[in-house]
Amino acid sequence: MKSLPVFLMGCGGVGRQLLQHIVSCRSLHAKQGVHLRVVGVCDSKSLVVVADVLTAELDDSFLLEVCRVKSNGSSLQTLANSSVCQVFSGPEVIRKVIDIGLLGKSTGLAFVDCSASAETIGVLNQVVDFGCCVVLANKKPLTVQMEDYDKLVSQPRRLRHESTVGAGLPVIASLNRIISSGDPVYRIIGSLSGTLGYVMSEVEDGKPFSQVVNAAKSLGYTEPDPRDDLGGMDVARKALILARLLGRSLNLDNMKIESLYPEEMGPDVMPLEDFLVNGLPLLDQKIEDGIKQASANGNVLRYVCLIDDARCEVGIQEVPKDSALGRLRGSDNVVELYSRCYEKQPLVIQGAGAGNDTTAAGVLADILDIQDLFP
Amino acid sequence: MKSLPVFLMGCGGVGRQLLQHIVSCRSLHAKQGVHLRVVGVCDSKSLVVVADVLTAELDDSFLLEVCRVKSNGSSLQTLANSSVCQVFSGPEVIRKVIDIGLLGKSTGLAFVDCSASAETIGVLNQVVDFGCCVVLANKKPLTVQMEDYDKLVSQPRRLRHESTVGAGLPVIASLNRIISSGDPVYRIIGSLSGTLGYVMSEVEDGKPFSQVVNAAKSLGYTEPDPRDDLGGMDVARKALILARLLGRSLNLDNMKIESLYPEEMGPDVMPLEDFLVNGLPLLDQKIEDGIKQASANGNVLRYVCLIDDARCEVGIQEVPKDSALGRLRGSDNVVELYSRCYEKQPLVIQGAGAGNDTTAAGVLADILDIQDLFP
Repeated sequence: MKSLPVFLMGCGGVGRQLLQHIVSCRSLHAKQGVHLRVVGVCDSKSLVVVADVLTAELDDSFLLEVCRVKSNGSSLQTLANSSVCQVFSGPEVIRKVIDIGLLGKSTGLAFVDCSASAETIGVLNQVVDFGCCVVLANKKPLTVQMEDYDKLVSQPRRLRHESTVGAGLPVIASLNRIISSGDPVYRIIGSLSGTLGYVMSEVEDGKPFSQVVNAAKSLGYTEPDPRDDLGGMDVARKALILARLLGRSLNLDNMKIESLYPEEMGPDVMPLEDFLVNGLPLLDQKIEDGIKQASANGNVLRYVCLIDDARCEVGIQEVPKDSALGRLRGSDNVVELYSRCYEKQPLVIQGAGAGNDTTAAGVLADILDIQDLFP
Repeated sequence: MKSLPVFLMGCGGVGRQLLQHIVSCRSLHAKQGVHLRVVGVCDSKSLVVVADVLTAELDDSFLLEVCRVKSNGSSLQTLANSSVCQVFSGPEVIRKVIDIGLLGKSTGLAFVDCSASAETIGVLNQVVDFGCCVVLANKKPLTVQMEDYDKLVSQPRRLRHESTVGAGLPVIASLNRIISSGDPVYRIIGSLSGTLGYVMSEVEDGKPFSQVVNAAKSLGYTEPDPRDDLGGMDVARKALILARLLGRSLNLDNMKIESLYPEEMGPDVMPLEDFLVNGLPLLDQKIEDGIKQASANGNVLRYVCLIDDARCEVGIQEVPKDSALGRLRGSDNVVELYSRCYEKQPLVIQGAGAGNDTTAAGVLADILDIQDLFP
């Protein structure tokens, strides 16, 4: 049985779901000859780690206890009385995390970032140097400035990040296969926000934009402040991740990112309630006009990421009504990829692109996929 | 630079395209730190191999010469005068191939089967025992009786076969990810024959079945004898490969395989010309009736592979008009996969599922994907 040491940063919904998946897959992974040995877990404030990281592990009942504690909103400190682990807090955390990263040199380590923090890149770049494998659900380490990015991807076989684009949808794995087979990618166009996909397909049916956004918020499809979705930054990060995989040297601030609300309705200027009640309706007409114009061309509007030789941008585009993108309904993600092998008809990957379950499943598949790098 | 020894069985269209891809990807792979060292190539009659398999390689100009020789319909024997290699023929070939397989024990070896032969399973099972990695475009080694299959897959990490289903489409890679993440697959339904996909979407438009099949044959979309497509055996092999990946213990002869022509029109009974002119038109009415019936239910007919808890079968099924399968036009393949993560809306993978270029690209991506298993 091969033992894969795993360290997890981030105990939000995705991180907790990952721990639960790991526990529930024990017999499956045993059949595959692999055991995931979780040596530690941290959030932004505290760290729980086994006393002997070289041999011990947090057992399954403890991992489920971590999930319970965190989903109750309690601190990992609560677990300090357990005899199976040590708990650290405050400035000690980072130092101790780096210590754990040294496992990369001896037994190998899957260093998993399920946080949403922009601050993990420093730690990640250090543990990459130690020889750790890094698995990311967190997009932010991949959308830092190029210099830090280049360090992070310096050992590309040791880095996996399927769940940073389209959650568990096999977008990154498929793109990496196409790249390594020498098939040149001409164009990627996709709807990579379930929220914006839902909004754009609903307004297509004639409903006012303001009404659709408010309904989406009520259904829990949007962030608490829908401007976090409508601004396009989340989609832009995904586009940047794809473009950089294709070898493009780009930063977020070079990209054209279309926001669906104007600056004067931004979170710093207009309170949320005001935006929802008074701001949004002012945007209805422009969207309606765009839909009519597109329809006259046999097209529909989608909020897409678009990457080709000339462009890496996100925003509203007209797409053919009868394409995979054009036929998209609801909150599924879809990616169309054009290359020499998929020249006239694209390679299409479509499905749920959000949710803790599928995101954590993508992370887990990544961890299993690097098993051959472990001694 | 990591050196990956590669041995190729089969110099048909896919094998030759693979050699060309390997040559044209030299600088790309060098950037990735990998060099594919082709130590030998064989077809069913002859074997070309470097004198020292531990260190030497067939150089790029020689590989392209192999492609030229084989696409001219000449024998690999033609290359016997070259000083860079040894050529073997007849009964010596198998013995020598096994010798090459011994590389698996020392340097590792990617043993690639791009033939269409049912006879390679014996050799493959021997080299698997030596520790070789096996990469297949050939479906037949995966559709043998379970006992031989179980031997072949005994080291699952050392076996890749993306191009056996949907050519280079990332179907197997995606399914393997889903399996290893513990996401239970409830149902796979797909159109895995470009020919039958084309035929079923054309007859949907009201054209007679006989006319569509004859047109497809003229366009080169079918095998020389279209009954090789219409019989469903090729789709059945793909379905069996997927079902066995899901852990089902099944053989081809347990499967329900619907043929689109009756036994009395089979190749042993009716000459091809007779089938095309007189046989096919007798089948038009049944297909037309089926389409009308489906249409009354809001459905269309597709020739699908269908795998769920109860079934692993191939044949004509009614599918919803507005599903990915129902919207399929032309010769693209499409796979819909339902699992816990993709429960209401399936994970959909769609695109060109045939052609030497994309099939060989899938094989090459598989070879690159096993690089971590090499010393």
